[in-house]
Amino acid sequence: MAGNILSLFLENIRSKEKISRPKSVLSKAISIIENEQSESQDILKNLFPYLGNAYRIGFTGPPGSGKSTLVNLIAKNFADQGLKVGIIAVDPTSSYTGGAILGDRYRMNDIVLHPHIFIRSMASRGSFGGLVRTAYQVADVMEAYGMDMILFETVGVGQSEIEIVKHADSTIVVLVPESGDGVQAMKAGLMEIADIFVINKSDREQSDHIKLEIEAMLELKAHDEKSWLTPVIKTVATQKKGIEGVMEQVEKHKEYLRNSGELSRRRKDRIQHELLRLIEGRIRQQWTEQDFVGKIQSHVESIFLNKDSLYSVAENIYQEHFKGQP
Amino acid sequence: MAGNILSLFLENIRSKEKISRPKSVLSKAISIIENEQSESQDILKNLFPYLGNAYRIGFTGPPGSGKSTLVNLIAKNFADQGLKVGIIAVDPTSSYTGGAILGDRYRMNDIVLHPHIFIRSMASRGSFGGLVRTAYQVADVMEAYGMDMILFETVGVGQSEIEIVKHADSTIVVLVPESGDGVQAMKAGLMEIADIFVINKSDREQSDHIKLEIEAMLELKAHDEKSWLTPVIKTVATQKKGIEGVMEQVEKHKEYLRNSGELSRRRKDRIQHELLRLIEGRIRQQWTEQDFVGKIQSHVESIFLNKDSLYSVAENIYQEHFKGQP
Repeated sequence: MAGNILSLFLENIRSKEKISRPKSVLSKAISIIENEQSESQDILKNLFPYLGNAYRIGFTGPPGSGKSTLVNLIAKNFADQGLKVGIIAVDPTSSYTGGAILGDRYRMNDIVLHPHIFIRSMASRGSFGGLVRTAYQVADVMEAYGMDMILFETVGVGQSEIEIVKHADSTIVVLVPESGDGVQAMKAGLMEIADIFVINKSDREQSDHIKLEIEAMLELKAHDEKSWLTPVIKTVATQKKGIEGVMEQVEKHKEYLRNSGELSRRRKDRIQHELLRLIEGRIRQQWTEQDFVGKIQSHVESIFLNKDSLYSVAENIYQEHFKGQP
Repeated sequence: MAGNILSLFLENIRSKEKISRPKSVLSKAISIIENEQSESQDILKNLFPYLGNAYRIGFTGPPGSGKSTLVNLIAKNFADQGLKVGIIAVDPTSSYTGGAILGDRYRMNDIVLHPHIFIRSMASRGSFGGLVRTAYQVADVMEAYGMDMILFETVGVGQSEIEIVKHADSTIVVLVPESGDGVQAMKAGLMEIADIFVINKSDREQSDHIKLEIEAMLELKAHDEKSWLTPVIKTVATQKKGIEGVMEQVEKHKEYLRNSGELSRRRKDRIQHELLRLIEGRIRQQWTEQDFVGKIQSHVESIFLNKDSLYSVAENIYQEHFKGQP
């Protein structure tokens, strides 16, 4: 079965017209990656000739800031221009994974069924960089399958979650006009990663206040006349207000990245991070295969009994087995 | 200066009465750990004879659920019993790190100044497991310095952040009575890690509804007559209501862990996870020292130019340098 999917997937990316590739094959290929089935390496290793053309946009912000609604509208906007759009939602509080059940959010059927939009929600599981690694692998699979735009949605309060959007081409931080959000965004490190700020739900009071607050904080960032000036856009996503403003800034930022050479720099940076993460993951995998954990049980026992130091043991194991590598 | 702190710190944990150890020395020792100064290994390697006595409680939940207020009250309660309490807040939206500036939260001066309570807030920075690693190192330093209780506070929507509380002795998930929170908690993996559920702000409408919802979900968890039945406690932390109920359940859970042998199992599990993370961190550090990143730049370039596959390159580097290790 999975072998069938592998050949169907490869056949599609190699020969079929983008437009005629079925969503079902992509969906099953992604499941193979997510579940780390044996065919996943065969899929991943065949993607590279078809990469580098999609533009990746990361959306992040606190739960309840309306990211999903905004992502929906932006996706629809791109799709209406004839572009193929992949959405990767890594957010347990996203309306893709939970909110829609409650029926209190924006209706999504029109985008779920849109022939040019493909949505995938990912659970926040695994560890040791597994979440970031899988999200990027899924993005590569989508890109090779013909998506022109990849939109990531993550909640803006987790280290791994922020890491995912940080390495997109453009990163959009979505906030709401509530007291203290600006300060909290700064503390969470969102100020540094934002290429575009969106104040959603800006029909509420205080939306001008937070806009000014963020603009004041942005003033403090070092910049010269050539650098990108992070814009702050007001939207009311549920009323489809302000979306053109966001689209326009994404276009401008893309231009800026291309003209300044920053786009290549960012992408090489992402590749480098991913390469290290993959090697690290592979070392981890070998630890499992060779029951490294079983071999260190006696150390765990001594540490537990206060007979030895966790930190000395770690250093000794490193010195014995890993020093000088590579 | 740092060398001075090292000897002062060691002198204090080795000979001084718990009660007379100054907060300022602990505070500076933690800074050395956080900034990974050269003395940090000397501090860490000397902690082990003084570990194993503190009880660790993790608090997690969505931003705005009132975790900080609850943690404050619990800390005060323990301190009033004569116990020494360390608080580690890893939450950019915590009132320790941001909210208090806004003046709209519980006043904390009485606990900040309490002689038996030591508070440390940590930024959510770094990556590759760095956040979890540092949080545990800080906990070990606090424990060796004489803290009887260590309370972790993390926001409940990030992979690393959830990992921190998951390995505490008791994990408390704090929710608020708002539509959908129960479902979202389940999706975020909070259902599996909770030893105690707290519904805070339960003077609001729907607090009984979410209590029933969570209890219904807990029913679905596999359990036999010997296993711990996760309680759901209602509190109004700002009015100090329900705190005794939480204290009582923490005490019961501690008893359960001790009697069932689960406490040792959990702690060995935490040690094992930490040991692997430390070895991994050490390998990473070596990569930096030996400019591994510089050595792989030509690969990054080929991948960027679609001449080679990220996934094949990672596998090849692994095969060449790391296979067979350890």
